[in-house]
Amino acid sequence: MRTIEWDDGVVKMIDQRKLPLEYAVVEFSDYREVAQAIREMCIRGAPAIGVAAAFGLALVARQSQATNREQLLADLEEAASVLRETRPTAVNLFWAIERMLDRARQVDSPEVEAIADALVAEAQLLADEDVEINKRLGAYGAELIADGDNILTHCNAGRLATVDYGTVLGVVRAAHEQGKRIHVWVDETRPRLQGARLTAWELMREGIPMTLIADNTAGHLMYTGQVDIVLFGADRVAANGDVANKIGSYKLAVLARENGIPCYSVSPTSTVDLSLAGGDDIPIEERDAREVTYIRDVPIAPEGVPVYNPAFDVTPHRYITGIVTENGIVYPPFEVNLRKAVGLRSQARFFRTARSRR
Amino acid sequence: MRTIEWDDGVVKMIDQRKLPLEYAVVEFSDYREVAQAIREMCIRGAPAIGVAAAFGLALVARQSQATNREQLLADLEEAASVLRETRPTAVNLFWAIERMLDRARQVDSPEVEAIADALVAEAQLLADEDVEINKRLGAYGAELIADGDNILTHCNAGRLATVDYGTVLGVVRAAHEQGKRIHVWVDETRPRLQGARLTAWELMREGIPMTLIADNTAGHLMYTGQVDIVLFGADRVAANGDVANKIGSYKLAVLARENGIPCYSVSPTSTVDLSLAGGDDIPIEERDAREVTYIRDVPIAPEGVPVYNPAFDVTPHRYITGIVTENGIVYPPFEVNLRKAVGLRSQARFFRTARSRR
Repeated sequence: MRTIEWDDGVVKMIDQRKLPLEYAVVEFSDYREVAQAIREMCIRGAPAIGVAAAFGLALVARQSQATNREQLLADLEEAASVLRETRPTAVNLFWAIERMLDRARQVDSPEVEAIADALVAEAQLLADEDVEINKRLGAYGAELIADGDNILTHCNAGRLATVDYGTVLGVVRAAHEQGKRIHVWVDETRPRLQGARLTAWELMREGIPMTLIADNTAGHLMYTGQVDIVLFGADRVAANGDVANKIGSYKLAVLARENGIPCYSVSPTSTVDLSLAGGDDIPIEERDAREVTYIRDVPIAPEGVPVYNPAFDVTPHRYITGIVTENGIVYPPFEVNLRKAVGLRSQARFFRTARSRR
Repeated sequence: MRTIEWDDGVVKMIDQRKLPLEYAVVEFSDYREVAQAIREMCIRGAPAIGVAAAFGLALVARQSQATNREQLLADLEEAASVLRETRPTAVNLFWAIERMLDRARQVDSPEVEAIADALVAEAQLLADEDVEINKRLGAYGAELIADGDNILTHCNAGRLATVDYGTVLGVVRAAHEQGKRIHVWVDETRPRLQGARLTAWELMREGIPMTLIADNTAGHLMYTGQVDIVLFGADRVAANGDVANKIGSYKLAVLARENGIPCYSVSPTSTVDLSLAGGDDIPIEERDAREVTYIRDVPIAPEGVPVYNPAFDVTPHRYITGIVTENGIVYPPFEVNLRKAVGLRSQARFFRTARSRR
């Protein structure tokens, strides 16, 4: 199954907290459960949580007791405010919520049922588009990968971070499908270990050669000439090309530049936030100390130790070689070129949304 | 007690595999047990494993069935070859073993008992010197620390990595004892978590303000202006000042330079290996995959995942601001100044060894 699916009024998702030890699918019929699943990282990854929020609003629309359009819109707004509070950094969450609310407002019918139908369809469309977008950016990104390349990646920007194909791992999959002999260095990605738990699991299942490393090992690999390209995702890209992504991405970009290795962020244009001039304005989520002090139920630090646990960092655009999007690879000057890539969003023919709304 | 002690023919050490969950002292009366304790990191840290090897040879001398000088020297050589095989990177191990063997050869008596007495005394001296050396380099290093400084450190270069006072944490202790208000960012230091387990434990016990972070967070802290100085230890320093230290140190030095933050290695001159021109010649230990894939007995990655687990990396000297030794802070050109600092070793009055041998 996909990372997240809509199944007859129920939202199903792979429980990413349990992988790789257990493959479990959870089902939610209340949007508050979806919000909690996002908060607790049962589902994570910028594109995936956007889709999860969209399906959450579809649940609201389907279940609302509203008898008229205004009541339903109010119910949706209320749910949207709960969903917006789940995680602050990935802009796809807010983007998807706005898109769903816009869709609700645009339905040309006073019928509650018609609006609900439109929202379920819109969330489905958003999920389907995500897969298509991943395949497009995968194809663009694969052009950057040469036969024999060693790719280093951080966290999980794979199918589990999206609906099905992946951003960074979309590029990796596309290169692999083209027959390029590649090998992926997988940062374990403390504290939540998305690399060790999720990226390793994805790559092993597909037989793509990979090696797991502690995050501390990445610099040594670059210095000793064992990395050809660094690829990581994005949770939010500012108008100037600064990239917020999983904590530790910044160091990879600095080390890559220091060692003459190209470093790309791979993400859909829905991750770009043109309202923010630079990365300093991106809100950085801080998460619970327990993510650092415990591994599952095993304590690994002294009881009561003070902890600082930001979930993301910002990589200034000067360290980013390019940003791989579904509309092509964006190179500096990002200020100009990101705007163009995002602009293509509403025109592009592959965006069925645009067509369906006309 | 000290990290390691000689007690009437028995070597006692704090079991660092169990900290911070359990404080346990283990006792060994066979040098092979000491070798295993080094290999399994029951004791670790470049200076501490040198002292452990010295006490291991003292055990051999005390227990040998040799009836003459030549037999005893042969027993010692055999044990030395076992001890040398325990860990390849920290040169202090080899340095301490050579010093013990030299001492044995120099004893001006054919009596086996006299040689054994001399070796027990030499190992004790080496341990006592280590404490004195730490206090000296602590005093030098403390001059680098200003009131209010945020210090970032990696791994454990504390009392647990030495006999009692610490190298990096010797500097921290000295600054704290001088009344400077300091705060230490402690990298957890995957995969073995020496920061989370040992450095946090040491600092919390002494009430020195500290905060634990995932290794991935260090760069973010530097970029956001929250680090004033980076201090890490050394397992081997080449003649040109290249520093081999715990995996992940290289990235800290690169990030520090990129952000205009001074980065010092803190270590005794016994860590300097003038026989190696540069860091590329330093042997880098690779350790078991299980260090990465398990936390205690909890698996954190897919079964059978390929792993690369180097225990150390090399930081080229161009990223190192200075090297804090017991003979002062060594600045570039390291090629010249390290040789001077090491040269002081044999002359310095505080080296009671030198005196006792005359």
